[in-house]
Amino acid sequence: MRSAFFISDGTALTAEAFGNALLSMFPVKIKPVTLAFVDSEQKAQQACQRINQVYQETGHKPLIFHTFVNTEIKGIVTSANAVSYDFLDHFIAPVAAELDCAAQPKTHRTHGIHNDYDFRIDAINYALANDDGSNLSNYEEADLILVGVSRTGKTPTSLYLALQYGIKAANYPFTEDDNMEQLKLPESLKSYRHKLFGLTLDADRLHHIRSKRREGSRYASMAQCRFELQQVENLYRREAIPFIDSTRFSVEEIAAKILAETNLERHRF
Amino acid sequence: MRSAFFISDGTALTAEAFGNALLSMFPVKIKPVTLAFVDSEQKAQQACQRINQVYQETGHKPLIFHTFVNTEIKGIVTSANAVSYDFLDHFIAPVAAELDCAAQPKTHRTHGIHNDYDFRIDAINYALANDDGSNLSNYEEADLILVGVSRTGKTPTSLYLALQYGIKAANYPFTEDDNMEQLKLPESLKSYRHKLFGLTLDADRLHHIRSKRREGSRYASMAQCRFELQQVENLYRREAIPFIDSTRFSVEEIAAKILAETNLERHRF
Repeated sequence: MRSAFFISDGTALTAEAFGNALLSMFPVKIKPVTLAFVDSEQKAQQACQRINQVYQETGHKPLIFHTFVNTEIKGIVTSANAVSYDFLDHFIAPVAAELDCAAQPKTHRTHGIHNDYDFRIDAINYALANDDGSNLSNYEEADLILVGVSRTGKTPTSLYLALQYGIKAANYPFTEDDNMEQLKLPESLKSYRHKLFGLTLDADRLHHIRSKRREGSRYASMAQCRFELQQVENLYRREAIPFIDSTRFSVEEIAAKILAETNLERHRF
Repeated sequence: MRSAFFISDGTALTAEAFGNALLSMFPVKIKPVTLAFVDSEQKAQQACQRINQVYQETGHKPLIFHTFVNTEIKGIVTSANAVSYDFLDHFIAPVAAELDCAAQPKTHRTHGIHNDYDFRIDAINYALANDDGSNLSNYEEADLILVGVSRTGKTPTSLYLALQYGIKAANYPFTEDDNMEQLKLPESLKSYRHKLFGLTLDADRLHHIRSKRREGSRYASMAQCRFELQQVENLYRREAIPFIDSTRFSVEEIAAKILAETNLERHRF
């Protein structure tokens, strides 16, 4: 199996994003290794040795995806027996020409602390304090209120929106207390319907997820999952609450779809 | 101000990562717009109109950073009055040659549901159930136990590690209950010391953060912040617990530093 190294003198998050996006285009299994904070000549030499060792052991040159700011360190790493891809190098000149401005490379600019950093931490604290319908009085402050039956992905989605984008997302679970037989929009949500976004799932998938939690329970039964999902989807349609079926989507995709539909601002960048 | 569009027929996360990494090299203020799921000719035409409108209003061509799989949709978007950068295009041929394999572009391969997806959701549930020392009996299962005094970034870091990498990180706060005057490693942590990782902060920063929470309290006072941090840093040194001062670091950087120091596996990719 070929190996790929994602290397940087910073977090290597950009090198990972760049390398993974490229490698995902090929139906080839690759062994990934991330080397972050390679920010001294000594660490660069260690990285170089590690890469050369893979080459010696496998007979194949590893692929290196890197984003170095320090050119000396880059020189050491790219002297390894490997194939190097440097996406910054290729694009800096055309972007510099277009912006009519010289590049001023600086480590940690991409994933360092920005002004909006406290904002993201506040959003995480908000998501935690308003998880699972635990705090019905704080919805004034919410950018978004995720609704859905238990185990449809509300909590991971609200945490992701907070961490990535500084968006304050509360979440409210529809439960037996809401009278599932004749599900109506709860009083506590009525004044905030413009902030509501619904999640739903395949009954099969929900049954699978709930069974991992409470196997054999009524809560996890196919019949109950089907019933709850039907009730909640009817409610979404009746009340014109936008919603998505998250069965085949990752947290990243769910979050991106919600942002695309609601036009909420991404605070991060 | 110049505008930049990050556009894709998927989540646009890769286009954002690519564009932001490049733009961060330049000391220029840019207005960012993300257009995700531009996956039909109609949506492509709308995107095109929106880009052209910015050009008309500002007299400057917007920059477009895109990662389209569908070439027809890409053709429509890049026909706008803008400057396009397509990082996939440039690198696909050399990587294909190196891997001796044709590219098979497919939407949603980068940020879609992978096999490790349940793994990440399990890790989030684990982080939530083991937040703030709430569950001392589950440490067997932890990949990592973050320790530190109150408000030093343990919770956001554990959630980020779970969401991004599927790493199960518990967190344990040192409090008055641990007898801060003579801080020792709590009994509940002793068998797991190989999993411990400490966080600390500048006293100034901790004072600022705690004051936002409980202004004027003893808890938030400079004296108390200084005292607690001194105690906890002494403990880290005495017990040889690896730790970082997170004052000037973002969650991404803290997480990347922890991974770099502990060699924990990144499950995501």
